Amino acid sequence: MKPYGAYTPAELASERDALTEQYESCKSRGLKLNMTRGVPSLAQLDLSRGLLTCLGDDEYMAEDGLDCRNYGGLDGIPEMKRIFAAILDLEPDEVIVGGNSSLALMFDNVASNMSHGVRDGAPWRSQGQPKFLCPSPGYDRHFSICQYFHIDMIPVKMTDEGPDMDTVEKLVSTDPMIKGMWCVPVFSNPTGLVYSDETVRRIARLKPAAADFRVYWDNAYAIHQFSGEKRRIPNLIRECAEAGNEHIPLVFASFSKVTFSGAAVTCIASSRSNCEFIKKRLSMQTIGPDKLRQLMHAKFFGGAEGVYAHMRKHAAILKPKFDLIEEILSARLGGRDAARWTTPEGGYFVSVNALPGCARRIVQLCAEAGVSLTPAGATYPYGRDPKDSNIRLAPTFPPLDELRQAMEVFCLAVKLASVEKQLAADSRA
Amino acid sequence: MKPYGAYTPAELASERDALTEQYESCKSRGLKLNMTRGVPSLAQLDLSRGLLTCLGDDEYMAEDGLDCRNYGGLDGIPEMKRIFAAILDLEPDEVIVGGNSSLALMFDNVASNMSHGVRDGAPWRSQGQPKFLCPSPGYDRHFSICQYFHIDMIPVKMTDEGPDMDTVEKLVSTDPMIKGMWCVPVFSNPTGLVYSDETVRRIARLKPAAADFRVYWDNAYAIHQFSGEKRRIPNLIRECAEAGNEHIPLVFASFSKVTFSGAAVTCIASSRSNCEFIKKRLSMQTIGPDKLRQLMHAKFFGGAEGVYAHMRKHAAILKPKFDLIEEILSARLGGRDAARWTTPEGGYFVSVNALPGCARRIVQLCAEAGVSLTPAGATYPYGRDPKDSNIRLAPTFPPLDELRQAMEVFCLAVKLASVEKQLAADSRA
Repeated sequence: MKPYGAYTPAELASERDALTEQYESCKSRGLKLNMTRGVPSLAQLDLSRGLLTCLGDDEYMAEDGLDCRNYGGLDGIPEMKRIFAAILDLEPDEVIVGGNSSLALMFDNVASNMSHGVRDGAPWRSQGQPKFLCPSPGYDRHFSICQYFHIDMIPVKMTDEGPDMDTVEKLVSTDPMIKGMWCVPVFSNPTGLVYSDETVRRIARLKPAAADFRVYWDNAYAIHQFSGEKRRIPNLIRECAEAGNEHIPLVFASFSKVTFSGAAVTCIASSRSNCEFIKKRLSMQTIGPDKLRQLMHAKFFGGAEGVYAHMRKHAAILKPKFDLIEEILSARLGGRDAARWTTPEGGYFVSVNALPGCARRIVQLCAEAGVSLTPAGATYPYGRDPKDSNIRLAPTFPPLDELRQAMEVFCLAVKLASVEKQLAADSRA
Repeated sequence: MKPYGAYTPAELASERDALTEQYESCKSRGLKLNMTRGVPSLAQLDLSRGLLTCLGDDEYMAEDGLDCRNYGGLDGIPEMKRIFAAILDLEPDEVIVGGNSSLALMFDNVASNMSHGVRDGAPWRSQGQPKFLCPSPGYDRHFSICQYFHIDMIPVKMTDEGPDMDTVEKLVSTDPMIKGMWCVPVFSNPTGLVYSDETVRRIARLKPAAADFRVYWDNAYAIHQFSGEKRRIPNLIRECAEAGNEHIPLVFASFSKVTFSGAAVTCIASSRSNCEFIKKRLSMQTIGPDKLRQLMHAKFFGGAEGVYAHMRKHAAILKPKFDLIEEILSARLGGRDAARWTTPEGGYFVSVNALPGCARRIVQLCAEAGVSLTPAGATYPYGRDPKDSNIRLAPTFPPLDELRQAMEVFCLAVKLASVEKQLAADSRA
């Protein structure tokens, strides 16, 4: 297909009219389709149907004899620690199983470091203006945490290998107020890309100007590969220890997209002494996690192998959706200059880069035709995409037939916005 | 019985020898009894046995159509809000059902006010040295939260009617750095006493010097009366609204001692606009609460009446334990000057005031004889009981026969410590 840049003004005008007609016809169908958030589909939720009924009413003892119905067990039960440790290639005593939301663990860790400092460090907020590196496009909820705590966000470009490490190394080694960095190393939100081994190793070998610098390693999609296998990358905690950066990484994992969001289990993993530090706060903060939810998960899966088997069933549901997206994007936009997109091997998102200045218009066109997308800009700090180009597609929730309809609308919107843009550029020329 | 103060030195010495002999004989029995914390007994836990299996694997929809297995529902499902609202005599939209630990809700609220301020107020920490009023003896975990956030604690004497309100009114109305006050209004921890109606109304009518003053109303034992009825006190939220103090109260409630600690549900209730403010933080902080736990509780109880029926079963287990304590304390220490104690009509604790300077010794004597008590001083800010007199007894966990043994050891320890004290005083005279 010819790129729009090569169209004559007359061809563009005629294309705009044709696209507008198609678009108006779409609009009149009164669609109501939602691709805003990375939410498991009903078919995926049904995979965990047995979870809720897997414990008999006389099954409440953890393997260490703790009664999961009563107080105690601040850092999780042994069998659930073991499962997370196996998934993360760590030891159980490097893992704290806590709460039902890994986002809450990250929020709380940032809150703690802001007000009380890292281990024996001064509170971040007392040292000046704290800053975080934010590889972008990235996860909007990470950015919200920074914004809430008035932490300055420094966007760092994402390459195909992960964050641009030349920039990261330079900034981290020179600015002692850079206290943190958000990372989604595997099937990153929203690009779906995986950090290269070299990127992981360069992160492990950073020489931060701040003694209290931390890497927030949100390994949300570690086991969400469409091939059904765990996606292996170098072990950040081990690599950091080797590089003398033992206390820098804070690793987060979650079963929110494995079993039931909200009724799942999550963990934070770090050096043993970081874990002790975190447990001190926990002991003031809470009576402990929901140990029965942990026991239920441990029984339902039996062990890490059971989790992987379960993830293969998720993959079987998800892969056709991502294949469909690739198929439609290629068919409708291939060869155009209107968009580039990622083709992830796992995770929950596809990232589309439209022509600069088109993202907001595309999201608006989709919304008016009944297709809700993540707001344009959401994948950048402060909700500001400097190029107004990036759009996150979240295809997991809608069934295949709805996804197909939504993607047709999306491609139409991309083309229409691109033609409008080209026409405007031509008229200025 | 003759008070020890009236004994001659020779009588005291002989009593000490007799008590020591009994105590050594106790010690040799190698007891291992735990009365440190307010923990439900196994018989109580068994009351909720049906909870875990009450939802079929096709029951996951809240009454408003929300799928409790997926994301969403930040402030709780309607049916669980309604139950908490009924218990607290409020409307459902004044309630946020969240998390599994009301302690965590309190900790987080203090954290939020310290770093971000109350609604449109400046952060507490930015205004100078924040202070909290701490009616004492009180709940050690409230005090730990203050200590963790470097909030100065001002102890206020507890009378039989609740905190000494003359002192509270004077301090709150004059010092703008007094930002909060801890209250356990019903079956207070550790005294077991209930605030009088007049005390509640005086709290509601406070005229704080600080515009951002808050009352932390930890209504942990609202429905834990041994008679099986809900204990009614004036409704703080309504009384505050009438007095123009609408946004001052933050009310907390928990099912940790109703069903399963950790696997229960909890809530925070406040003015509607306070709830909106809290929800804003929640939306940054978490993907939401465990809605399936909420649904399970709503189905198990059916409504507030079901909760009250359940609490009558708890009461039937707990009352004999508190009766036994009263019986043994009266029989062994009645008529002595060695101790005064409370006789609560509900809750989880009995508070004993020993002779000044004796509490730590008593706890130590008990520990050496195999009976663990809450550390002396724990019921006061900074763990410092100025008179070294108060001891919290937590009799709920041990079965009756173990409780009897523990109480015999305790009474022996009280008498021995008192005689030692009297002998020391005589020798100084």
